[in-house]
Order: sequence, then C-alpha cells, then structure tokens
Amino acid sequence: MSIRQLPSAGFSITVRVSLPADAGAIGRLTTAVGEAGAIVRALDVVSSDHQSVVVDLTCDTSDSAHAELVAQTLESLPGVKVRKVSDRTFLLHLGGKIEVTSKVSLRNRDELSRAYTPGVARVCMAIAENPEDARRLTIKRNTVAVVTDGSAVLGLGNIGPAAALPVMEGKAALFKRFGGVDAWPVCLDTQDTDEIVDIVTAIAPVYGGINLEDIAAPRCFEIEERLRERLDIPVFHDDQHGTAIVVLAALTNALRVVGKRIEDVRVVVSGAGAAGTAIMKLLLKQGVGDIVACDRPGALHKGLPEVQNRESWRWLAEHTNKDGYSGDLKGALVGSDVFIGVSAPNLLEGADVARMAKDPIVFALANPDPEINPIEAAQYAAIVATGRSDQPNQINNVLAFPGVFRGMLDAQAEEWTDAAALAAAQAIADVVGADKVNPSVIIPSVFDPHVAPAVADAVKKALLAGKNPSLDRY
Amino acid sequence: MSIRQLPSAGFSITVRVSLPADAGAIGRLTTAVGEAGAIVRALDVVSSDHQSVVVDLTCDTSDSAHAELVAQTLESLPGVKVRKVSDRTFLLHLGGKIEVTSKVSLRNRDELSRAYTPGVARVCMAIAENPEDARRLTIKRNTVAVVTDGSAVLGLGNIGPAAALPVMEGKAALFKRFGGVDAWPVCLDTQDTDEIVDIVTAIAPVYGGINLEDIAAPRCFEIEERLRERLDIPVFHDDQHGTAIVVLAALTNALRVVGKRIEDVRVVVSGAGAAGTAIMKLLLKQGVGDIVACDRPGALHKGLPEVQNRESWRWLAEHTNKDGYSGDLKGALVGSDVFIGVSAPNLLEGADVARMAKDPIVFALANPDPEINPIEAAQYAAIVATGRSDQPNQINNVLAFPGVFRGMLDAQAEEWTDAAALAAAQAIADVVGADKVNPSVIIPSVFDPHVAPAVADAVKKALLAGKNPSLDRY
Repeated sequence: MSIRQLPSAGFSITVRVSLPADAGAIGRLTTAVGEAGAIVRALDVVSSDHQSVVVDLTCDTSDSAHAELVAQTLESLPGVKVRKVSDRTFLLHLGGKIEVTSKVSLRNRDELSRAYTPGVARVCMAIAENPEDARRLTIKRNTVAVVTDGSAVLGLGNIGPAAALPVMEGKAALFKRFGGVDAWPVCLDTQDTDEIVDIVTAIAPVYGGINLEDIAAPRCFEIEERLRERLDIPVFHDDQHGTAIVVLAALTNALRVVGKRIEDVRVVVSGAGAAGTAIMKLLLKQGVGDIVACDRPGALHKGLPEVQNRESWRWLAEHTNKDGYSGDLKGALVGSDVFIGVSAPNLLEGADVARMAKDPIVFALANPDPEINPIEAAQYAAIVATGRSDQPNQINNVLAFPGVFRGMLDAQAEEWTDAAALAAAQAIADVVGADKVNPSVIIPSVFDPHVAPAVADAVKKALLAGKNPSLDRY
Repeated sequence: MSIRQLPSAGFSITVRVSLPADAGAIGRLTTAVGEAGAIVRALDVVSSDHQSVVVDLTCDTSDSAHAELVAQTLESLPGVKVRKVSDRTFLLHLGGKIEVTSKVSLRNRDELSRAYTPGVARVCMAIAENPEDARRLTIKRNTVAVVTDGSAVLGLGNIGPAAALPVMEGKAALFKRFGGVDAWPVCLDTQDTDEIVDIVTAIAPVYGGINLEDIAAPRCFEIEERLRERLDIPVFHDDQHGTAIVVLAALTNALRVVGKRIEDVRVVVSGAGAAGTAIMKLLLKQGVGDIVACDRPGALHKGLPEVQNRESWRWLAEHTNKDGYSGDLKGALVGSDVFIGVSAPNLLEGADVARMAKDPIVFALANPDPEINPIEAAQYAAIVATGRSDQPNQINNVLAFPGVFRGMLDAQAEEWTDAAALAAAQAIADVVGADKVNPSVIIPSVFDPHVAPAVADAVKKALLAGKNPSLDRY
C-alpha cells in the first residue's frame, strides 16, 4: 500500500506544443495538465500568428510514466500538436554538474612562474622534506574523494561505476554548496574488495578524507575497516555513518517531544544492512535502553542459525536484544517505543503501530516507498519521519556529511571517531533546539544555513579532543 | 659552464624591514638589493613614526640561496632590521591551486530534486542502459586525469606522489586556463607498473582522457602502451608526446628560416629517454632525413651491446642512424644540421656547433641548465632554442597539451594517433606563420591566445578523420 509520489521538480518537463489561437485554447491546455495530475510551472509563448500559437509548457510530474501520460493527454486535445518534450533534469546534466577551476591567476609570465615552473619546484621539495606540509600547501587541505564501485546506488542497485557518476557529481556539488569542501568522484570499475582497498590507498595522497558511497553490504564493512587501518586520513561511509548521525539527531529531538530518555527506550530496527547496523552501533554508544534488530530471518538473537554466517549480525546478536526475543518484526514491535525502518516498502500497517508503547516514534526510511504509509502511521504514532521530501521530518544525509567533512578537514584529522559522530548528531538536534521541537519538526531543513557550521564545529572539537575523548558530556 | 638564472617571479620574496627615517634610507635599501643582483618589484610602507619606517620590500631573486643572500644583505645595512621574509610562491600555494565547483545551482528544493535525488536516478538509468551517454551527461565529457607516480618530477627526480601534487595542480590549472579542460590530479602511491595500469583502468569511467605525467622511463613506455590497449579513451604521455609536438613545431619553423627541407636534414638527438624517443619517432613520421640518437654509451647503432638490453633503444637502432655511425655525441654532430638535446647540462661548447653543417639549428632543452650555453651557441648557430623562459624560443609543452586534450575531448576520441600529433605540431608552427618566422621567433608565446584553439581544431579534425587517416597532407 504505497502512497503516490507527488509531482516534483525532479520530474519536470517542458513540452513545446502548437495550438489554435482561440481565446480558450491555453486554458484548455493547462486544465488538461492539471486533470492529468501534473502541476503547471510556467507557460512561455515561443511564436504566434493569426491562426495559431506555439508555447513551451513547463510542468512537474510524478515520474517518467506520468510525464509520458501528460504528453499524450496534450496530444489528444483537439487542434493541439506536441512538437518536443524536453526533460529539464537531463538538460541540467549535459556536460556534468561539477568543474575544476583554478584558484590562481595565470595571466602573465610572473604568475606562471609562481604557480608552475620554476617556482613550484621549491614547494615540491618542501613537501618531499616534510610530508605533513601537503596538508598546508596542496589541495589535500580541503579535498575529499567520493568513492563508489556503483554496486548499491540509491535504490537502483548494482548499476556500475559510469551510471553512478551523476550521483557522485551531485554529492560533490552538495559538499561544496553546504560545506565548502572540494569533493571529487572516484567511480571504480571493479567490485573486488582487495582491489578497491589497494586503489583507494594508492590514490590517497591527494585527499584529506575518504567518503565511501553506495557500496553494497557486507563488502562495504570490510573495505571501510581495512582502509581505516591503512590510511592516515579519515574514512567515512556515508550510507552508514551519515545516516546514523541524522537518525540519532532526529531521535534525540523526538524523545524530547514525547518526554522519554534514550536509556529507557526499546528500539526496533528493521533492516540490518549497512545503514541499520551503523544506526544501531551509534544508538548503543549513546546508551539506548535496548534494540531488537530484524531482518529477513526475523529478530536477530544468539540462537538464530543465520546469525552465525555473517560477522555483523553475530556482533549485533551479542550486543542487542537483551531479552533474547525470537520472532518476527511485528511481534518485536509490541510494547516498543521506537521503530526505525531502513529496509523495504510496506511491511507494516497502522495496527502494528497501535500495539507499540505509549507515544510511538516511527522512522520509516525506505525510499521512495516507506515501511508504512506515513499518513496511516500518523494516526497512531506520536511522531513520524521518512526519507521523503514531500512529508514532514525528512531524514536526509545532506544534514550531516558536508559539516562532518568540513570539521574533519579543519581538524586535519587522521581518523573518524564515534565521539565525533555523537557530537555531530547532537549538533544537528540542537539546531532545532529543545524549545522549538514539535511532532512535525524534529529535524532542521536541509537548507537551514546553521546546520553545516554547527556540525563542523562540533566534529572539529570532538576530533581535536584527542583519540580517546571523554564521552561524559553526552 | 652554466649561465646564471636571471631573477624571476618564481623566486619572489617580500621582506619586511624597519629602517631609520632619514631621507636616504630607502634609497640605500633598494640600492643594496640591486647590488645583490635582485630586482625590486614593489615597496610598500607598512607604518612609520618620527624616527623610523617599516616597509614591505618585494623583489625577484634567482633561487633560494640568492633570496637568503638578499635578506642577509639588508640585515647588514646600518640601522636596518629584517622582521620577516615571506616567499610569495609559498603564499600562493596555501590550500592548493585548484578547486571543485558546482556548475548547477542548489538554492532550493526544486534545484536539489533535479541535480540529486530523485531526479538524478533517471540520468543514472539512462547511462546504465546506454554507457556512451556518460560522455554527454557527466563530467566525462570534459575531464582528464593527470596521472603520476612522482618518479620523475620536473628535474627533481623521484620525490613521490605527495610532493608531485603541486606540479599536477599547476598542470590542471593550465589545462583550464588554456584549453577549458577540467583536469584532476591522480598522484599514485605506487611505482609498480602492473598496479599503475590496473588503477588507471579502474578509475577511467570518470575521464574522457588520460594524461600521464612525470613517470620515469622506461616504465612510462609500458604503462602507456598497456593502457592504450585496455582503455577506450585516449592516453597521452605529455613528457613524450607533448614535448615531441612542440619540438617538431619549432623545427618546422627553424627549417623555414634556414631554407632546408626536413627530408634533407640529419638530426642528432642527445638523450634517448622518454622525451628523446618520442621526438625521434615523430620526426621519423614526418619524414626526417636521418637521425643519430646519442645517450650515455654514445651513438645508438645495431652493433652497440647496450642497445640489446633496452627495447626502446633496440627500436631506435633499427630505425635511425642509416650510416651506422658509432662514436660519441661530439663526433655525431660533425656535418649535422640539427642538434636536439633532452639530456644533461653543459655537454657541448661553441666549437662543437662550429663543426656542424651550414646554418646549424641547436635546441638545447635540458632544464634549467641547457646542453650548451645558449649565448655561446648563438655565436655559431643560425637558430638556438631552449626550455628557459628567459631566452628566445622557449620550447614549452604548454603550447601543446591544452589544445591537444581540448581537441581529443571534442572529438570524443577513443585513442591518440600520430596523425593528430603531426597535425598539432603543424598548427603550432602555423600560428607564427611562414612570413613571420625569424631566428628569434620560431615558436609562439605561451600566452598567444591563438595557439590552443588552433591545436584543438587540428587535433579534432585529425582524430575525426578516422582510425587510419591519410598522412598525405604532411
């Protein structure tokens, strides 16, 4: 039971149509678009004569099939002819979304002599003598690699490195827009764990941090762990740690709204993959009361045979599910305080939420179709959050990663820490502020300009506090 | 017998000094700087009172030792105190020389929806279905990797990937400035041929071309050859092919000046490494009369034992030195028309040039100290060129690579060809023009705005002419 995606700018089309020049023609056109479920955004006259007019009609649609339906609807109107359908998203992608620009002027010989030979040779020698100077005298100071093998891109699956590039370019654009970080796409034409680890190690001299992106579980765990051992720059898997930070931030404010303490709540997590595992580990660091992790075989517990075959599940079985609950997701929910879904669409219904403890908190983050219809969930839950931009409380990684890497780079950090993750989550939660939270606003807008600086500042402080910072203040 | 490097902006310093406020003090300061061999570029008063004045004195020096000497000279003047010496080249390098910027606006939700989720998913799927679309819808359209292992950086030798980064950043800045090409530094922390080939193959999906840079011979030959076999984008080793193109362009115009045809001349090349080998191969393609290649063991010929151990030398012995000359460099020069040095400083003197054929052409390209003092060479040669910016006829790769890659990318080329190299050289030569060449101007200035577009156009046409273009027009 999924809810229909609302028309959005992501599926915006511009249709060039010719139509008769009578007084009602344009009205019939826009009416037809509205009746087809699309939203008219603009109408520009291209040309006209006494009998006819040509217009560019721009409208938001729900998805590709809907866009096609709208074009067909227009074509079927009497006297109307569709000349061309332009997809604004594709137009925006022509030639790519990022570029490399020079920060130095190269107008004349003097400037060339400083930025390139012969002047550059002295800078090279300074770094050869003192390698740490690379963080001061090169782009390593502010640059991050966005590394993927294209194996788990968005909800699209294993589409490969070339098809993943538009996502990585978008990520790089977001890094600059929100964090002032220079990020570069590294799309690898291999899905071999050893090769990926070797390649990222080899390219690391240019970068001050590594952001792993859209790499399938469980390979992503091993790649991250081995890179952390080998590199002297932080390694961060956004699908894991970025998601975990934003979920903890949202949960922190949700608990403020319902007046519960994290030590007292029982959380059910649906989906023990990359994101789910990272969320649970961070909740444990934050002192959560208990967690029950559910995946395809049901609730993970020490006695479950499937748990033995997968290292991350074995770890979870040992560190969660204090009561040793065995059974399915719906059973686990009974009497629980929080549901966090990072799994599959339409697993639950309102009645399941009704059986949770008082003031249930539901984070249904499967995208684009959540684990439960959020409108139905809201009839029983005190607070509902999703990953969708057309619902309240959107859990969006953009709230975390730009500030996280800004803080890492400013701290010239050598590794990522749990303390920094906890600090980042707290910073995001505090941007809303304890006095302003309510059931519809547990998380700031992605466009809130206070978020990234607050996250950067918290992360920088946590990373500079040393390798074993005190967690007391949490 | 080297010539002193002239003071240049590459070694520009700013010295902050306090000095007495009498009328002659500043005059004594600038006089001292001039007497120390430096050139005063600017004098800015920072502060003053009745007794003293503090000034920032900016001057060009010859090298680091000279800069230190200048500071000591100032310190020794009566009443003068040096407070701080700033190196303008280092200041310019702080934080690196290039950045990644977004070409798309991300001001609001609509723009985010098109550049990132959900809109981007459709672009990903389009590329997954038709991989060639990556050249249209991603940065692959306009982006080049500048790949090095840091093993042969400028004249500095094997300084490693981190210390090589300032050069690669400078190269990327030049790519954008002169060719509108987005170039990204890939500095690899490995010098293993197999690993380098595997890594560059794996990162290739993001790029429309590969520029190998400052990789030591003979490893560079194998890396280039194997990458050409494996990749469907052009691979270009600038130290080889860029140098060869500019040398051929300069030689074309030099021969115009002295009125000789390339078919009739005998060329002696000193240095059969990466650059020398590529120069000789391109001269052969252009139909040069004969070449004698010299390296440490003397002239390469089929009977020389050292030739058997090195594949590139074996090839040269088979394709050059028609008369089977065996002997040293100086002997080879007797009666030859052209000397091209890409080897070591101070191998020759004027008397060697005097023994060449009528109107000798001398390209002494070892940097910073040429194979022969160019001022001495000019007493005997019709034309002298060097790699130095403070002498006439600078042979500089900046004349080739920006236009070369602009043309490659615009042609959406899958490989680099000799025909394109010959076309590029001809285009550079023609920018000067047959009617304008003279012994001091056989090559255009690196700042001549006509060069890169002319090269790009010639390269694009040559690459689009097919895989086996006719070479008749050369």
